[in-house]
This record gives sequence, C-alpha cells and structure tokens, in this order.
Amino acid sequence: MTSQQPPLWRRAVAELLGTSLLVTIVVGSGIAAQQLSPNDVGLQLLQNSTATVLGLTVLILVLGPVSGAHFNPVVSLADWILGRRSGTGLALPELGAYVVAQTAGAVGGSVVANAMFEVGTSISATERATPGHLLGEVIATAGLILLVFALAATKRGVLAAPAVGAYIGAAYWFTSSTSFANPAVTVGRIFSDTFAGIAPASVPGFVVAQLIGAAVGLGLLLILFPAAARTADDVVLTRGAERAIS
Amino acid sequence: MTSQQPPLWRRAVAELLGTSLLVTIVVGSGIAAQQLSPNDVGLQLLQNSTATVLGLTVLILVLGPVSGAHFNPVVSLADWILGRRSGTGLALPELGAYVVAQTAGAVGGSVVANAMFEVGTSISATERATPGHLLGEVIATAGLILLVFALAATKRGVLAAPAVGAYIGAAYWFTSSTSFANPAVTVGRIFSDTFAGIAPASVPGFVVAQLIGAAVGLGLLLILFPAAARTADDVVLTRGAERAIS
Amino acid sequence: MTSQQPPLWRRAVAELLGTSLLVTIVVGSGIAAQQLSPNDVGLQLLQNSTATVLGLTVLILVLGPVSGAHFNPVVSLADWILGRRSGTGLALPELGAYVVAQTAGAVGGSVVANAMFEVGTSISATERATPGHLLGEVIATAGLILLVFALAATKRGVLAAPAVGAYIGAAYWFTSSTSFANPAVTVGRIFSDTFAGIAPASVPGFVVAQLIGAAVGLGLLLILFPAAARTADDVVLTRGAERAIS
Amino acid sequence: MTSQQPPLWRRAVAELLGTSLLVTIVVGSGIAAQQLSPNDVGLQLLQNSTATVLGLTVLILVLGPVSGAHFNPVVSLADWILGRRSGTGLALPELGAYVVAQTAGAVGGSVVANAMFEVGTSISATERATPGHLLGEVIATAGLILLVFALAATKRGVLAAPAVGAYIGAAYWFTSSTSFANPAVTVGRIFSDTFAGIAPASVPGFVVAQLIGAAVGLGLLLILFPAAARTADDVVLTRGAERAIS
Repeated sequence: MTSQQPPLWRRAVAELLGTSLLVTIVVGSGIAAQQLSPNDVGLQLLQNSTATVLGLTVLILVLGPVSGAHFNPVVSLADWILGRRSGTGLALPELGAYVVAQTAGAVGGSVVANAMFEVGTSISATERATPGHLLGEVIATAGLILLVFALAATKRGVLAAPAVGAYIGAAYWFTSSTSFANPAVTVGRIFSDTFAGIAPASVPGFVVAQLIGAAVGLGLLLILFPAAARTADDVVLTRGAERAIS
Repeated sequence: MTSQQPPLWRRAVAELLGTSLLVTIVVGSGIAAQQLSPNDVGLQLLQNSTATVLGLTVLILVLGPVSGAHFNPVVSLADWILGRRSGTGLALPELGAYVVAQTAGAVGGSVVANAMFEVGTSISATERATPGHLLGEVIATAGLILLVFALAATKRGVLAAPAVGAYIGAAYWFTSSTSFANPAVTVGRIFSDTFAGIAPASVPGFVVAQLIGAAVGLGLLLILFPAAARTADDVVLTRGAERAIS
Repeated sequence: MTSQQPPLWRRAVAELLGTSLLVTIVVGSGIAAQQLSPNDVGLQLLQNSTATVLGLTVLILVLGPVSGAHFNPVVSLADWILGRRSGTGLALPELGAYVVAQTAGAVGGSVVANAMFEVGTSISATERATPGHLLGEVIATAGLILLVFALAATKRGVLAAPAVGAYIGAAYWFTSSTSFANPAVTVGRIFSDTFAGIAPASVPGFVVAQLIGAAVGLGLLLILFPAAARTADDVVLTRGAERAIS
Repeated sequence: MTSQQPPLWRRAVAELLGTSLLVTIVVGSGIAAQQLSPNDVGLQLLQNSTATVLGLTVLILVLGPVSGAHFNPVVSLADWILGRRSGTGLALPELGAYVVAQTAGAVGGSVVANAMFEVGTSISATERATPGHLLGEVIATAGLILLVFALAATKRGVLAAPAVGAYIGAAYWFTSSTSFANPAVTVGRIFSDTFAGIAPASVPGFVVAQLIGAAVGLGLLLILFPAAARTADDVVLTRGAERAIS
C-alpha cells in the first residue's frame, strides 16, 4: 500500500465495476453465441472466448491504474499472501473489501447481461463438476496466478492486460472446464441459465479447485522466481499513470 | 487546441475519411459475411467483428495524429465537455465541423461499400430498437467513453488504437445490439439494406441511448479518474508524431 | 539509401524470400481451408485471412531490417516517388531489382504451396475482374499505401508489421475483391488453381486498379501529412537493429 | 552463459514446465475442438490454432526470463551452434539437459491433457508422414529458426513471445503438416490418440525434416543477418527482468 494509491472506496468501485463487466462480457457473449450459432457448440465457444480475450484485456487496461484490476478473489488473496513477505500488497481489510466488491459485481454482471438479451435472470442448471473439469480448474488457476505474479516479479506488469486476456482465451480451450479460474466469476455465473451458466451444486467444487490451483501457482512462482515477493498492485501500474490517479 | 495541431480543414478531412472507411469496413465486411456464410448468422457476426477490430485499429493508428481519430460525435462531444474544464479540447465550432464531417463520411462509407459489392444503395429495413438493444447501446457507449478518456487521463493514449479496436470487437458480442455506440455510424448504416443496416425508425432511439451512455461513461470517468480533465486530442498523439504533422 | 543499409543483393534476397513466403501463406492456407472446411466459403476465407494477418506480420518483422519488407511493387514504386522529393528512398535500379525479386518470389511461393499440399501447379481458372472487384482493389491499395507511408511520416515505422498485417486482414473482408493490393502477389497467385488463385485474364485489370489505388493513396498521404516525403526504408528499421545488419 | 542466468536446474524446470504446458495447450484444445465442433475439421483446426497462438505467446512471456523459453530441441541446438561462434549460448551439457527436460515435459503434457478431458492416454494412430507433410515440416522449422534468431540478432528479442505465437498460428494453416516444427512436441503428441496426435511411425520422418529445416533456417539467417552469432538466450530477456531472477 503506497501513498500513490487511490482511496480504498474508489478501488472497490473499480473492482466491482470491472468484475461486473467481465461477467457481462462472458455471459452476454455466451448468450449471443448461443442465439446466433445454434448448430455448433464449438463455434459458440470460439465466439465466447474471442469476445472475452478482447474485453478482458480492455478492462485490465482501463481499471488497472485504479485498483490493480484483480477482478478475482484468488488474485487478491495471492497478493495479500505475497505482500506479507514483502511488507507491501493488500492489507487484510482491503482483501475483504476487494472480495466483497468482486462477488457483488459478478452477480450484477449476470443480471445486466440477462437484461440486455431479455432472457430473465434465473439459476443455471448446467452441472460442471466432473473430475476432469476440476483438474482443469486447478491447472487454469495455477497458470493464471503464475502469469500475473511472474510479470510483476520481472517488472513487466504493463503487459498484464494483453497477457491475461490471451491466457484466458487459450484456457477456454485447453482446459476441459473452459477455465472459470475465478471464484467471484463462478458465483456470478450461477445467475444466468444460459451458455456460460453453472449450477450452484458445481460451485463449491470449482472454488476449492481454484484455491488449490492458486496454491500450486504460488509454489511454481517461488520455485521459478525466488525473488517474487512483489504484489499484484505493481502489475498494471505504469509510471506515468500513477500521478494522474493519486 | 495546441499550436501543434493541423489546421481544422485537414482535421475535418481526416474525420470524414476515417468515419467513411469505418463504415465501409463495417458494412462491407457484413455484406461479404452474409454472401459467403449464408447458413450461420453467428459466423457472419464473427467475420464482421473480426474485420472491424483489425480495421478500426488501423484507422485510429493512421489518422490519430491528424485529428485525434474520434470518428464518433459522442467522443467529440465528450472531448468538448471535458475540454471546457481544462481549457483544452475542441472548441464549439470545431465540434460542429467534426460532427458534420463524421456524419457525411459515414453516409459515404455505406455508399462505397454498396458499390464495391454491387448491391445498390437503399434504405435498410432492419428494425433494431428493442428495450434490450437500447440498454445495450447505453452500456456499449458508456464503456467506449470511459475507455478513451481513461487512457487519455493516464497518459496512455498511444494504446488507444488497439484498445478501441479490441473494445468494439468485444462489444459486438457482449451487448445485445452489436454495439453501434456511434451516432454518425448509426446514421451511415441506414443506407445499406444488408447485414449491418439499421432502419431509420430505430435510429432516434439508438442515438438517444448513445447520448445517455456517453453521460454514464463521463460520470464513471470522473468517479474513477478525478483528474481526468484531459482531452481526446491527447489520445493518439505520440510525441515523435507531433512535429511531422504540424 | 543510407550507409547503414545492407548491400542490394542481400536486400533483393530478402524481398524474394519475403514475397515468396507471403504467397505461400496466402495460397497454402487457402488450400488448407478449402480442404478442411468444404461446406462454408466464408469460414474458408476466415481461416485464410487469419493465417495471413499472423504470417504477414511476422514476415515484415523478420525481413524489415534487411530490405524494408516491401514485398509489393507498388510500395517500392511509391517509395521511389516519395524518395525523389527527399533525396532518399530507392534509386531507379534498386526499384527494378526489388520488383524483379518480388515477382519471381511470388511465383515461387505458389509453386512451394502447391508442392506442400501435393496439388500440382496449374493456371488458375478463377475470373475476378468485375467492376466491383476493381473498385475494391483501388480502395485496398490506396489504404495500404496511406498506412505504410503515414507510419513512416510520423516516425512510427516500428508499428508497420502488426499494422500492415491487421490492415490486410480487414481488407480481405471489407473489400469485395478480398484485397490483393499487390501486383507481384497477383501474378504469383496465377499459378495455383485453388482457393486463392486468379485467372490470367483478370490480372491486367487488377494491376491497373492497384496502380490507380497507389496514386490515390499517395494523394491522400500528401493532403493529410504534407511533410511525408519520407521513404519506406524508414518503415521497419528500429534503431537497435541498424548496427546488427550493417 | 552469463552470470545473470538462473542455475541450470531452474532453467530445466522452466523448459519442462513450458514444453509440458505447450503440449497440453495443443492436445487439449484439439480434444475440445473435436468434441465441440464434430462436423467441420477446418473449424476444429481454427480453434486449435487460435488457442495455440494465445497460449504459446503467454508461455514464452512467463518463462522466457528463466530459461529463454526454447521449449524446442531444434531451437536449443541452434542456440548451441550459434553460441560456439560467439562464445555465448548453451554449453553442450546444458543442451543435453534442455532436450531431456523438453522431451519429458512434452510427454507429460499429453498425459495431463488426456486426464483433463478424461479420454485415457493411448498411442496415436494418425499417420502423417507424406512427402508433402515432410516438406511442410522443413519449411515450418526453417521459418521458426529464422524468426527466433533474426529477432535476437537485431536485438528485438522482447518481441519473441507474440511473434513466435503468431508464426506458429500462421504455420498451422500455410503448411500442409499443420506445423509441428518441434521434435519434443512431436514425441509428446504420440501419447494422445486425438485430434493433435501423431502415430509413432510418422515421428522419425518428422524429426528428420525438422532437423533439415533447422539447417535451412540457419543458412538463411547467416545470409540475411551475417552478424547473427547471437544466442537464443538473448531472445526474451528484458533488461529489467534480469535482476529479478538472478
């Protein structure tokens, strides 16, 4: 927590808005894909993943200078854990505020997507928690944590926006679970019974797998980048930007 | 308005040419998609959105140093509003010239696309103004305004070309309206009764929604970036470029 | 012609290799698309254009420091014309060497693509010279010339690789002709009777349209960037690279 | 081998992890594509290649600062050959460690992908070694080697991540073999009888073709960039990163 950071309330607004828009992008493009390409599920996923690559990159770019653009409780958690080693990073009350904002935003994002496409908000019936999918979530989340904090550790946080977008776009396809990799987004996706939805019964398994994945990712990080006690707040701050937001 | 800017007539030519080519890209690739993939509307939209991501990025890159590459009356309007706070930005007569050039260019762009594909210029019959689509336009435009001026406020205007291209590419999919987000382009798309067209009766609703979206975007901007009284003219100017065009 | 440029023979090798690989990319990915997605021509074009965006970007990146990565007689011609104004740019004998290398390379590229896919080299029977397609070639080539030399004029030549790749990827879709925009590549594409081929009878019309487009592009360049008497050789040279190749 | 490099064991871990994830990306996205778009092989390849472009770019970005992100025995071999000329580059025992790590990782990557998609690990039955495909592998590998070491020779190694990703994405399409271009990945792909698999009988031909391609690529490199006695270890190291990992 440096003196250059915006006040917590503004960072929480950024996390809420960003996670909300992320879920709107995922759920909304899923609905569009399902409606427009009804005969090929793979084509639907290609449309859904392409929209997410582009949209997530932009969201991190816009909101990174405000809050670090975590949009994801396991990123905030890892930031807090790494920050305890270095004396920087989120403090525990900040972690709480981030997670609450992310989760509330994620639910709101589903509601907004449903409203735009006039499909009505209801609970998803899509069961997803198979052993293969849970392994997929472990791998997807491990990779995400390794990516975000490896960039921070090597002072290349300015690349986080396109890199995280690209990573999630690949992970939609190379993991069997289509890479949720985010507990808040997983909860938000309960509230749309459409392409990107997830049934409540599958959520606990997914979240546990994501937490295990985050631990694996942190382990790999400390093996490969032993000096990596940096915080995610370094991730997307560019030097020029710091003054403009303080 | 700094001393380094090109004369207004040249900036107006750039806005006219750029908006014209933007509409040619949107309408032309829509016609190509409709002709080549007649059996899957989602695939058509993927082709249409992919072409727009790439083409819009290039247009902003080429013409940004001349006029700021607004190509959009609500961007010019927001630039004028923000500029009044800071003493920079477009003056009112410049705003008028920009909007006229953008609208004339947009109509011309439809005519050129129709001519290339030999389909004849006629008025679109595609009604689009449903409540869900209007909400989509509010969100799409709010996001665009927030993106453009957040980059300017954080002195990352050099990223505007790929970022705006990526944003529109995502918004084609995550909004229900396929993200027009631009009053001039909306008017231009009246004049092609093809994939990307819009019936005149739907235009007023779309434009009102876009103006509301711009206001929402400006509100979010001032909450998240309180120092954001920058102008869109900073958006795409690179330092090295300034001398070459003055 | 500065003292830092490689000798002409090496630049000619780069132009021959680069244009050859460009045609291999265009023709080869067209054959793959036709074989793998036989039921949707639009999907074939999407595969073809996506491969070209990525491949052309890489070719310019690799060979730009050697020859400027023109791979296109109208780019070399425009470079010579602009260079006469500034005392830089290609000299007339160099222009001749470039065009010969580009054309020979383009023909070779078709032969290599045919060999990889074991389809046999034969003359294309695909007639393409309709009025709409010729207008498409004028517009596609004008945009290409404006893009390349606008970047050079504003000292952003380092962006040429992704920008030209993106531009061609968009122009595949927004022009009716799928944007050949290159006389050498047009000639090379005669020699494959596959997706990307062009019948010899259509070539003269395409080349004339491309020359007209180049003139239009130069005209727009001089209106928008009056100081643009730069040469294409500035386009892709990065400062660090100059020493490594001289 | 400079004093700033991490110890060999850590670099070997990075090569093992990176090659493993690369094969997981290629094989996993291939399985997903096959399951989700069963009716169009070209669409499957587009999904497979898109995931690989994005995923490979991210892998090089993350692990480049540790090991140089070769993930490919012919890249390591070429690095050793070029390094003998310059007194830098991999030493012979390091080359051995890299190749062992890459090959073991590649096999593991197939196993992980199979486990995520619950398809069971078995030997592929997909014969691929036709004359056209072998020519494809020569060209694909020549291009890859030329790209990697041309960027290093011109001090643009920071571009390797997106450039190599883009190159492989294009080569999936413009070569007839879908561009394996990597002996370790070729071996790894034996162990999944799915979309991306290769029958053991086709592997020796592919590997020989890749070695020939590497020689062709090195030859072209030395013709075009005579000063190119750089090593691949320069490829992805950014200055700021060096301190963080030493």
